[in-house]
Amino acid sequence: MSGKPAVVLLSGGLDSATVAAIARADGHSVYALSFDYGQRHRHELHAASQIADALDVAEHRTVVVDLRVFGASALTADIDVPKHRSADHIGDGIPITYVPARNTIFLSFALGYAEVVDAADIYIGVNALDYSGYPDCRPEYIAAYEQMANLATKAAVEGVARVSIRAPLIDMTKARIIQRGRELGVDFSMTRSCYDPSRDGAACGGCDSCLLRAKGFADAGVPDPTIYAQPTSPVETPS
Amino acid sequence: MSGKPAVVLLSGGLDSATVAAIARADGHSVYALSFDYGQRHRHELHAASQIADALDVAEHRTVVVDLRVFGASALTADIDVPKHRSADHIGDGIPITYVPARNTIFLSFALGYAEVVDAADIYIGVNALDYSGYPDCRPEYIAAYEQMANLATKAAVEGVARVSIRAPLIDMTKARIIQRGRELGVDFSMTRSCYDPSRDGAACGGCDSCLLRAKGFADAGVPDPTIYAQPTSPVETPS
Repeated sequence: MSGKPAVVLLSGGLDSATVAAIARADGHSVYALSFDYGQRHRHELHAASQIADALDVAEHRTVVVDLRVFGASALTADIDVPKHRSADHIGDGIPITYVPARNTIFLSFALGYAEVVDAADIYIGVNALDYSGYPDCRPEYIAAYEQMANLATKAAVEGVARVSIRAPLIDMTKARIIQRGRELGVDFSMTRSCYDPSRDGAACGGCDSCLLRAKGFADAGVPDPTIYAQPTSPVETPS
Repeated sequence: MSGKPAVVLLSGGLDSATVAAIARADGHSVYALSFDYGQRHRHELHAASQIADALDVAEHRTVVVDLRVFGASALTADIDVPKHRSADHIGDGIPITYVPARNTIFLSFALGYAEVVDAADIYIGVNALDYSGYPDCRPEYIAAYEQMANLATKAAVEGVARVSIRAPLIDMTKARIIQRGRELGVDFSMTRSCYDPSRDGAACGGCDSCLLRAKGFADAGVPDPTIYAQPTSPVETPS
């Protein structure tokens, strides 16, 4: 695989798998970066490895960072992941699955990695439409991050390279992301989105991430390859 | 200890010890954050604990992050730390002891920690005068980081709090930092600055950090409490 190096944040979900395929379609040699951050849904790390192999990336590194030191999120702490009856029931506020400063931390490692492999482009699969209320998925956040990044690194200071933070999904609906991924040959059966999977990796079908994913496949008219543990009876949380 | 919470990045060096004392003098309850990042000079983590105890902080957490995954710095990889005859011999460029995106990564964890403990202030001991050429120690970098941080967090989005990145040492000489620390009662014998200490923790006396520290004590007219392994014969590297 040749082309200019680009760092891609690869979680193992369908968004980041599509982003990795976009980076490759943009002509880049992909340096994929995943995080073992004490997430409850660690099956996504296995998915990230499979996706990296399928995309023939130049390199795939996994950084261990223990975000549980901060607690406070249902994704890392011993707090129940909220379940809803359908995507329409997802609340407007910032959900309890928000991990403090997660994208800021992940992008910072990507910036260090980019500096080491001489990459001027960092790809991240954030999405402002289906972002479930996370502050660090908005375009103004990405723009501010890019500005900071260009003052932070040796390459930027020496005028060798300008760092670009690429968020190609930021304005897409989940359905559009799925269509784009399909065009690029992404095998969505490898991807994992559920925040609260069963022990064998089956999706719960009721968390925000499962609901947005299922709705996306339905809206796109693409068969949903997800294996659900409870396809018909997600639990409603009292609100 | 009472007062509004503030997160302080505490490395165990004299700069961050002084910053922690300034945060306390500013009336804050100090939440100190250190990093075990695979640094060669791990003795600084022990120093950080001693300093945190002496300052009676509200909490001191150490995050394990393996920056060795990126290699490429004499502080984490198997590259010799350069030695010089005196502070005047330190080069102008960005030194090999620069760790890619280190301050960006550290501030990102501080941002997450601040969100969890409801702190609106993050203190960091960066210094633009004696910074040895690190890009992420400049005022424009700190300002850009603060702008990004205020778009990144739940508290900022909800308008609950504005995050301030405080870099009170940024315009100070090392001598002035030492004077300020002394005024605030910092015990500098607890602090460690050397990038390449001996096994028993004695300072090498020849790395950039040792030279700047020794010059700072001399310029400040304050007795240097540092224990040096080789006080009189630092090694000159070929340039």
